[in-house]
Amino acid sequence: MGLFSKDIKTMNDLFVHTLRDIYYAENQLVKALPEMIEKASDASLKQAFQAHLGETKNQVTRLEQVFQMHGVEPKGIDCPAIDGIIEEAEEVAGEVDDKEVLDAALVAAAQAVEHYEIARYGTLIAWAKRLGRNDCASVLAKNLDEEKATDKKLTALAEARLNLKAAS
Amino acid sequence: MGLFSKDIKTMNDLFVHTLRDIYYAENQLVKALPEMIEKASDASLKQAFQAHLGETKNQVTRLEQVFQMHGVEPKGIDCPAIDGIIEEAEEVAGEVDDKEVLDAALVAAAQAVEHYEIARYGTLIAWAKRLGRNDCASVLAKNLDEEKATDKKLTALAEARLNLKAAS
Repeated sequence: MGLFSKDIKTMNDLFVHTLRDIYYAENQLVKALPEMIEKASDASLKQAFQAHLGETKNQVTRLEQVFQMHGVEPKGIDCPAIDGIIEEAEEVAGEVDDKEVLDAALVAAAQAVEHYEIARYGTLIAWAKRLGRNDCASVLAKNLDEEKATDKKLTALAEARLNLKAAS
Repeated sequence: MGLFSKDIKTMNDLFVHTLRDIYYAENQLVKALPEMIEKASDASLKQAFQAHLGETKNQVTRLEQVFQMHGVEPKGIDCPAIDGIIEEAEEVAGEVDDKEVLDAALVAAAQAVEHYEIARYGTLIAWAKRLGRNDCASVLAKNLDEEKATDKKLTALAEARLNLKAAS
């Protein structure tokens, strides 16, 4: 996609552009999660991040499946949004001087990532349906369901353990 | 907050840091929304963005109230996440060569912003409660409710009109 050309002419172009955006984002997350796992102190949090790393790798594979079903080459494009979210997570984590407070910050960072993905998958599913690609929509819906479930799991973990420990 | 110092020592520091992050984000959105209003073609979408600009200004005022209740100076800190989300929205909008497809892209961009804010307010409310600041939590909950309502409104608008028009 050129910076000065108008490359998005149709809904289909926009769908493919956004698919490439989330493909890049999921791949960035595969790279970022191991550091979050390492930084986490609480065993349940470490485990939740570990499980989500496995899920994220699967989600990348599902996105490749959607590219294939839609007849386009699976490739990413720069996504300043996810780069910004991850950069902010790293900056904040670098400033925290207490392991329980750090765990709370890591959960917050992960939930910002989840919500970005929830927004993008919600959009992509609606567009896939409009484009008559219910097959693509149903694969994308699996990723959306996992992101929503991860977000809920992190909320439950934070409410039940981390925030209590960090504020004590 | 220094880049090389560990300035976040307690849950309270993390709460204030994140409050400053969302304060910066809402202020950036007050600056970005007029351009989105201008770019939107569909009258209902223009109106929805206009209404949300008014709400966002109110949300900034509510955040200032929370700072005051909590006894800290209202100020923002750089938030690479919202900067990235807005940068991406501008990049994509600049590449779209069809006004109905542009409307669909603008809704998607706005929903990415809403979801970022939903994540941050959810976190801030949980932390405020843990810190014994139910008063702050209830003011923040008003902003969260508005963000959720805006997200739903944009979904309904996109499903009912925009995506149909853009894919036709």
